[in-house]
Amino acid sequence: MPTTDDKKTIIDPFGTTIIEDYDRLYEEFGIQPFRPLLSQVPNPSMYMRRNVVFGHRDLQPVLEAMKNHKDFAVMSGIKPTGEFHLGTLMTAQEVIYFQSQGATAFYCIADVEAYEDNRIPFERSQKYAAGNIADLLALGFNPKKGYIYQQSKERRVQDLAIIFGRGATLATMKAIYGERHMGYYLSALIQAGDILMPQLKDFDGPKPTVVPVGVDQDPHLRLTRDLASKFRRKYNFILPSSTVHKIMKGLDGSPKMSKRNPTSYFTLHEEPESIANKISNAFTGGKPTVAEQRKLGGNPDICPVYELDMYQFVEDDRKVIRVYQDCKSGKLLCGEHKNQTIETVLKFIKNHQRERRKFVDKARKILQESVMQAHCSNL
Amino acid sequence: MPTTDDKKTIIDPFGTTIIEDYDRLYEEFGIQPFRPLLSQVPNPSMYMRRNVVFGHRDLQPVLEAMKNHKDFAVMSGIKPTGEFHLGTLMTAQEVIYFQSQGATAFYCIADVEAYEDNRIPFERSQKYAAGNIADLLALGFNPKKGYIYQQSKERRVQDLAIIFGRGATLATMKAIYGERHMGYYLSALIQAGDILMPQLKDFDGPKPTVVPVGVDQDPHLRLTRDLASKFRRKYNFILPSSTVHKIMKGLDGSPKMSKRNPTSYFTLHEEPESIANKISNAFTGGKPTVAEQRKLGGNPDICPVYELDMYQFVEDDRKVIRVYQDCKSGKLLCGEHKNQTIETVLKFIKNHQRERRKFVDKARKILQESVMQAHCSNL
Repeated sequence: MPTTDDKKTIIDPFGTTIIEDYDRLYEEFGIQPFRPLLSQVPNPSMYMRRNVVFGHRDLQPVLEAMKNHKDFAVMSGIKPTGEFHLGTLMTAQEVIYFQSQGATAFYCIADVEAYEDNRIPFERSQKYAAGNIADLLALGFNPKKGYIYQQSKERRVQDLAIIFGRGATLATMKAIYGERHMGYYLSALIQAGDILMPQLKDFDGPKPTVVPVGVDQDPHLRLTRDLASKFRRKYNFILPSSTVHKIMKGLDGSPKMSKRNPTSYFTLHEEPESIANKISNAFTGGKPTVAEQRKLGGNPDICPVYELDMYQFVEDDRKVIRVYQDCKSGKLLCGEHKNQTIETVLKFIKNHQRERRKFVDKARKILQESVMQAHCSNL
Repeated sequence: MPTTDDKKTIIDPFGTTIIEDYDRLYEEFGIQPFRPLLSQVPNPSMYMRRNVVFGHRDLQPVLEAMKNHKDFAVMSGIKPTGEFHLGTLMTAQEVIYFQSQGATAFYCIADVEAYEDNRIPFERSQKYAAGNIADLLALGFNPKKGYIYQQSKERRVQDLAIIFGRGATLATMKAIYGERHMGYYLSALIQAGDILMPQLKDFDGPKPTVVPVGVDQDPHLRLTRDLASKFRRKYNFILPSSTVHKIMKGLDGSPKMSKRNPTSYFTLHEEPESIANKISNAFTGGKPTVAEQRKLGGNPDICPVYELDMYQFVEDDRKVIRVYQDCKSGKLLCGEHKNQTIETVLKFIKNHQRERRKFVDKARKILQESVMQAHCSNL
């Protein structure tokens, strides 16, 4: 098992095991490193402090708005293809963070994308959507300072997609997304509509907007910034900004969590025993024998169990640093660490599952209002 | 000046000068010849009798519905890029013809297409739209047995475009339309929505639908029939049919009337003097001298002035045949024929301009209702 220690010595508990890939993103795609901005953020989020948010595009206007208590927006969403998992949890937490810092928060149920990209019929995504909204509310999203909507019902978004169509050449689409069917390209234009809708007159006009994305979602930002600049004269758009976060590894040591691989991830609604079981059987950065580990220490930089603590479940930075150091020094063995993590994760999960029940009716109501808005419903 | 007589002897007053191109359409693209169906049409239109409607796709289900007084639809529209001209007049007349034969008539103000293809802003096409609708009503369209709508406001059409996106590969789009920008492809999907909307539950479900098109619009039918067949299971679509009509030559002898070339065409709202002037200066199939023409006869098969009579303005078939024969025999000279045609055309135009004034308010009202339907109006 090759470790990145061979290539680059990582002594930062908030570093990353594949930092060389992120360097490529800075150079090739123009994502800027987040670290230099950290000191300017009034109340940095956990992800920011820990370099999980490792990059950004053009975040300065958003930071200015945060510092000066000016109008700004945060926008993200979920493809309603299943239950909340750790990836959707991350963007939801970021949306809620920026909302707590004064942003008007937009959260999109991306059912058009689920249809075009994942072949999920609209009737089916409708079922997941209510659950997803309940999760979002249970995590702390304030619907009074935000707007939750379904992509298929929000005509302003589709109107923007039609407007943007003329600004997107086939060459651009192929360069960003490769050869895809028309529906996929169309959903990309609709996503550009999602990202820029907060700047329409209906929502008090142009404003800095931050879109927290996983690094795999960055192409949408590139397209949207290109379109925002092409249609700036008509709408006075401020080019949207993004924060870019790292993607968690699969619990089984695979490069990312994936639905195709159920032992690589868990959802927020899985049975606690099942979650405990997956963490218990997870890949780690440990050594083959206890003796070796005591002597040489473990490698948290490649360990998905450490990532659970660091990305998401341990709130106290000092505790995370201690785990990192104790693993490195050989003091903390994998079994013990797994038990600690299972305890922390299950505490969060059980609490969340309990909280969520309170929001199911409210979530259904929000979804109904969204449907009511629609002129009709062929989708 | 080469004439098609060199290639093919035309003795049919309702033949065409470029019939070999139409033959290619039959063979390459699968458009079927209309002539063999003529005897089955209960009350054939002027265009049908005169082979102006020279082709069709799959018209049989529509003919059956006409004969048996079953539910069927006719669908067409106009890009609101200017005033009614002879091309838009033709499709409007065909829509009105099928409506008179029992069809529910759908007429689309294709403002999305005008935007994506012709860069006409929505505010501008809105202005033309009211005038276009007044023309349609003055020509005899019955709004009580039909539905006039704006593409940008009709959400059912856009919903269908989203559904169809997944069925349209990039290869298909490129094969049918060539390399175009995304907006153009999107408007093609929206047009497929226009053509299939009459079959939605809101309009009493699946039914034969005929789309009268100029031969240059046939690609849309090919795409739509492909999509209708892909989504047949979900919607029970009956594949839409078409009638295909010839395109009139430019008055100046150019292959088709074109806005870029103002002497090649006239609109229904031009000053009568200007129209008279254009016909007076038109290219003809006449011989260089009167003596030659008396001896050898003229060539109506290549004559745009003859086309004005035959395609549009002379209602009596026998009169058209007489003009054809008298030209061929040398009896009718171009100057005399032009004067006759000017008289006929101006009579139609003056009457139409007078009639149209009565429908301006009604047209505005129809447009307003269409806008009211829209949930919002970013377009």
